[in-house]
Amino acid sequence: MPQTSVRGQIMPESPIRKLVPLSDKAKERGVKVYHLNIGQPDLKTPKVALEAIKNIDRAILEYSPSNGIKSLRLKLAEYYRKFNINVTENDIIVTSGGSEAVNFAFMACLDPGDEIIVPEPAYANYTAFAIAAGAVVKPVVSTIEEGFALPPIEKFEELITPRTKGILICNPNNPTGYLYTREELNKIRDLVKKYDLYLFSDEVYREFCYTGAPYISAFHLDGIENNVILFDSVSKRYSECGIRVGALVTKNKEVWKSVMKFCQARLSPPLIGQIIAEASVDTPQEYMLEMYNEYVERRKFLIDGLNRIPGVYSPIPMGAFYTVAKLPIDDADKFCAWLLSEFEYEGQTVMMAPASGFYTTNELGKDEVRLAYVLEKEDLAKALFVLKKALEVYPGRTI
Amino acid sequence: MPQTSVRGQIMPESPIRKLVPLSDKAKERGVKVYHLNIGQPDLKTPKVALEAIKNIDRAILEYSPSNGIKSLRLKLAEYYRKFNINVTENDIIVTSGGSEAVNFAFMACLDPGDEIIVPEPAYANYTAFAIAAGAVVKPVVSTIEEGFALPPIEKFEELITPRTKGILICNPNNPTGYLYTREELNKIRDLVKKYDLYLFSDEVYREFCYTGAPYISAFHLDGIENNVILFDSVSKRYSECGIRVGALVTKNKEVWKSVMKFCQARLSPPLIGQIIAEASVDTPQEYMLEMYNEYVERRKFLIDGLNRIPGVYSPIPMGAFYTVAKLPIDDADKFCAWLLSEFEYEGQTVMMAPASGFYTTNELGKDEVRLAYVLEKEDLAKALFVLKKALEVYPGRTI
Repeated sequence: MPQTSVRGQIMPESPIRKLVPLSDKAKERGVKVYHLNIGQPDLKTPKVALEAIKNIDRAILEYSPSNGIKSLRLKLAEYYRKFNINVTENDIIVTSGGSEAVNFAFMACLDPGDEIIVPEPAYANYTAFAIAAGAVVKPVVSTIEEGFALPPIEKFEELITPRTKGILICNPNNPTGYLYTREELNKIRDLVKKYDLYLFSDEVYREFCYTGAPYISAFHLDGIENNVILFDSVSKRYSECGIRVGALVTKNKEVWKSVMKFCQARLSPPLIGQIIAEASVDTPQEYMLEMYNEYVERRKFLIDGLNRIPGVYSPIPMGAFYTVAKLPIDDADKFCAWLLSEFEYEGQTVMMAPASGFYTTNELGKDEVRLAYVLEKEDLAKALFVLKKALEVYPGRTI
Repeated sequence: MPQTSVRGQIMPESPIRKLVPLSDKAKERGVKVYHLNIGQPDLKTPKVALEAIKNIDRAILEYSPSNGIKSLRLKLAEYYRKFNINVTENDIIVTSGGSEAVNFAFMACLDPGDEIIVPEPAYANYTAFAIAAGAVVKPVVSTIEEGFALPPIEKFEELITPRTKGILICNPNNPTGYLYTREELNKIRDLVKKYDLYLFSDEVYREFCYTGAPYISAFHLDGIENNVILFDSVSKRYSECGIRVGALVTKNKEVWKSVMKFCQARLSPPLIGQIIAEASVDTPQEYMLEMYNEYVERRKFLIDGLNRIPGVYSPIPMGAFYTVAKLPIDDADKFCAWLLSEFEYEGQTVMMAPASGFYTTNELGKDEVRLAYVLEKEDLAKALFVLKKALEVYPGRTI
């Protein structure tokens, strides 16, 4: 048989999705699995979104423009203005989920061999899309001891080579929940300016900031407007991950033009999803506030609960709905697989994402897991208890 | 500003979409444009599909599996069996349109520098996706004089190098409408077998065959089951291009595994589209027959009409809903732009796709255009008349 591609071979498996078959098996043997592994909010999709589906009245489900339906782009521009992100519908390209925005940005901006600097742990699929583009992720390690704060900017600068094309941040961060401060962002800005780099800024968790202060977007950073490529998605904020609608936002016309070629090749983003997304932007403030309060409570509940389990430590994340916790274990990959394939407590177990998949540096994150607080408090309580019980009997326990 | 990627720079613009701004301008000056340029059927989406939207009753629009919803894959397997394509739901990966199937197949199978042989004219986006993957399209030219039949197989064999990884066919063909014969397909099979190549087979126009004989799929070719990678889409057959649901079908487990990594990176195909696609497979035979008869009539009408215009020639395509016609003009790119920007006849004009965009060999197809018969007969009649009038006055007319 002909060989498959090298990039397909070196591409990492998703740290979350590779456990799915084990989770299915756990279900088969009648064990209830608490899913703390995936960023799929359990909150109901807003009514306006679901109603938009019912109201679809079209005779032909036809292609939409390659950069997305104009009325959706106008709506998104209006949404961004509420965050003082001053972009127009012509700066916005609608994509099939935030994932496609990352993919197209890398394809359009990076040549094979080009490098991007990414603080890690980082969303695993950045690496996947970088490999697809033939580019190289250069990690700067942030640590749980420092609460995953931005590492000293010198660590970034040390990595800069003639092949460095950009820096990527995810803010608030997946998987750590860390929210970058103004000071940290200014340091990144200065570096971006100094070396004329792209700043890829994944801002899909914008609505999930728990400091009370207004969100700081990459577009708020002075003097680098043309360097910023923003990734967005409606998935998380409106609990509609399945519709696959995201956006790439850039004021850089060369990048826009290049990205558009990739957009044209795949013809158009999903029509129905776009209709739903457009309606979702009008989600009542009430829903957003309720969601916000819910996550604030869950966050406190989960982090407190984690830190009360002997040997477990989690910093307090200021954004998103994830945290990375350190566990008293030999190997999180083994532990997470063991939870699904061997362990149960009163017919229950827990599914988490081993953090090793969020590091490109070998051996890092071996005793860390990512937890998403996408379950209601009662279930979080049970999941925490099950985790505690599991750690008591796990054969690879270290302390 | 940092440079965009070379691949983004060399990537061709879509031969169809690059004319869209001119078409918009024509509309602005009040000219009616007959769209013969794009493969967007004008036929209504089947009722079962539209009703499926109304019946969606979900509280959360969540991620679906990376390889697509199982019930849809089961349904597609059932559909394929009707065409004697014996695959199971585990051989099927649901993609965001047929486009993503092409993209992922190339990414998973081809390394930078690898070559695929493609009879041309060919669907322009194959080249785009090949460039994205760093691969090289080696064209074998089919000619309008031969009705776009498969060129002698020796022409393919001459192009084989150590970097040749596969052959790509689109059957029935976009843009030519050509339907490969059993004999032609057997020759391709033998070559695929002899050199152990991938056979990428784009079969999205399977339902549009006008010979009366049963459709021949790449999966019907003996002894190369593991080499075949089939591209499919529900877009054309159910007139639902906008929902972005396609499929990659392969029995090759290594390819499947590699493609799945790309699928996991983009998380999942669109949920609502999948629900619609699943319902669409149950479209009554009546609808399919009516559609079929409609295209048969249009085809005859269009081809007859074209061949009656002095200096115009079109072969009779046996499949899909396109034809490539030769016009008595200097340059189809100029002509198609001129039609939109300068010409009008009684307030009407015609939009077609210049065929040059379907050739990678320079200078080929300069006097050819692709026409899609996706308008009803009355409009086709008017479009043909407008085209005739345009050719009479076009300054670049050659004969």
